[in-house]
Amino acid sequence: MSEFELIAHLRARVPPDDSVVVGIGDDAAVLRPRAGRDLVATTDTLIEGVHFRAGIEAADLGRLALAANLSDLAAMGATPRWALLSLTLPAADRDWLDGFLDGFLALAAATGTALAGGNMTRGHLSITVQALGEVEPERVMTRSDGRPGDRVVVTGTPGDAAAALEHDHPGLNARLQRPEPRLAAGRALAGIARCGIDISDGLLSDLAHLLKGTTGARLELDRLPVSTALTRVVPNPSARWPYQLSGGSDYELCVLVPPDREPELPDIARRTATPLTVIGTLDDSGRIVCVRPDGGYFETINAGWDHFRV
Amino acid sequence: MSEFELIAHLRARVPPDDSVVVGIGDDAAVLRPRAGRDLVATTDTLIEGVHFRAGIEAADLGRLALAANLSDLAAMGATPRWALLSLTLPAADRDWLDGFLDGFLALAAATGTALAGGNMTRGHLSITVQALGEVEPERVMTRSDGRPGDRVVVTGTPGDAAAALEHDHPGLNARLQRPEPRLAAGRALAGIARCGIDISDGLLSDLAHLLKGTTGARLELDRLPVSTALTRVVPNPSARWPYQLSGGSDYELCVLVPPDREPELPDIARRTATPLTVIGTLDDSGRIVCVRPDGGYFETINAGWDHFRV
Repeated sequence: MSEFELIAHLRARVPPDDSVVVGIGDDAAVLRPRAGRDLVATTDTLIEGVHFRAGIEAADLGRLALAANLSDLAAMGATPRWALLSLTLPAADRDWLDGFLDGFLALAAATGTALAGGNMTRGHLSITVQALGEVEPERVMTRSDGRPGDRVVVTGTPGDAAAALEHDHPGLNARLQRPEPRLAAGRALAGIARCGIDISDGLLSDLAHLLKGTTGARLELDRLPVSTALTRVVPNPSARWPYQLSGGSDYELCVLVPPDREPELPDIARRTATPLTVIGTLDDSGRIVCVRPDGGYFETINAGWDHFRV
Repeated sequence: MSEFELIAHLRARVPPDDSVVVGIGDDAAVLRPRAGRDLVATTDTLIEGVHFRAGIEAADLGRLALAANLSDLAAMGATPRWALLSLTLPAADRDWLDGFLDGFLALAAATGTALAGGNMTRGHLSITVQALGEVEPERVMTRSDGRPGDRVVVTGTPGDAAAALEHDHPGLNARLQRPEPRLAAGRALAGIARCGIDISDGLLSDLAHLLKGTTGARLELDRLPVSTALTRVVPNPSARWPYQLSGGSDYELCVLVPPDREPELPDIARRTATPLTVIGTLDDSGRIVCVRPDGGYFETINAGWDHFRV
């Protein structure tokens, strides 16, 4: 197939969307924003051998490429609207593209994201997605400091995806291969939190970005949420901490919630079907302290994932 | 330097912009659109060895990566507002990044484009830029058909960039290395034309996309605009046609102008300092016919650039 045939094939698979005035096949997409909303824009590149294994299922890769971007929108409290897809492929393989689109378009449909345009070229396999969302200006969650007393809240059970890299277990593998962007929780938490971050680089590393060093936090390690899968594979709690504190790729969120809004968390967890766990509290120490169940503690900021320090 | 140091360095070089509520360094950028405008979104990926030569100056590459995207906005009649930059680099080279930013940020400043976010990762050198612009809904230029009688208008002198690949001449090289996105002309032409396209894949190939086969066009080859540089390097007019008709990478525009608006073209050309040339007229033949000065003609739709038919 030629580049234009591939694009025509892709275009035929994309459902129409009222907010897309001009979609795939023109010089650029024309999109109709909602009045009074700010636009939220993010992009992520996935490279073979760095962000995914060579043997990954095309559908899982398509899903992952979109999920990584939607997770960034979730961390801002935004609602996804549109995506652009830049595919660099070693060859024009229609079956592979169909598999990729199966995963991409299924997550797009489930999250109200319209694929509006993109780009296709030849080269080493690499995928760049741009996601565009919208947010009410007063609800946006940034990486600004919280205040001493704010609760540190995480969604889901961080650490599962990192554990899947070392342990073969279906429950963990699913979390690595098909992470769920926390869009509903992000939207709901944006109503009570001013600060939030996607912890795809690891909880401690990303929490440090959130605090930017001017506040501090005290985390209770025995409060870290843990999945049944991780409990089964790593029965010793302290052996799970490295995964939970430093493992990335879960695409969970960490948000800072003022103490007077903490009572609203159970209702948000129920409404959004998302586990929400308070794992610690902000203070003015300038450090992140992890307290063990025996009362001892360690201070350590894991540097998380750095693409140039591999 | 680490990934985070590189990003911090990049961030420090980006000037503030009122329309960027949250910029580089958060999970996503938060941007404030103008009320009543549609959003125009495009993305282009540049790969070493495919879209640029390995020895290209970093500043030229930075400029080119943005220019290719801005040209797509120009072809829609849009005004650029923001860009996201995804860089995949083989190593964390600050000098290279500074050179790249010199070119990128100079063109961004000249065109009112705010660099609002992006992504950095390690791998084979590749650059993906997303540009976001805005357009009044009634002014957008799409690839829809024009009507028989419409004038086929091109900006500048297409063919120079393609000629530079085979002839070493400073005037031609500049057009290949530092193409000028036709933003002012695109904005002004959007007031009188409903259809337009970026002819970066070659005039005949892109004109065929514009017509989509339902109308036709008759082009007069002796009307093709030609630069003094191309005249000097290729004195025989017919030997220039392959460059002018099939050569890409000029990032000129082709628009269809109703005959009653043709008298406005000289004023637009003057105001936007952009050469505008009527090279032919639409008809209902369903074909593109190129008429030679001797009255003979050929019909040929060059397939243009196809990444999977290299």
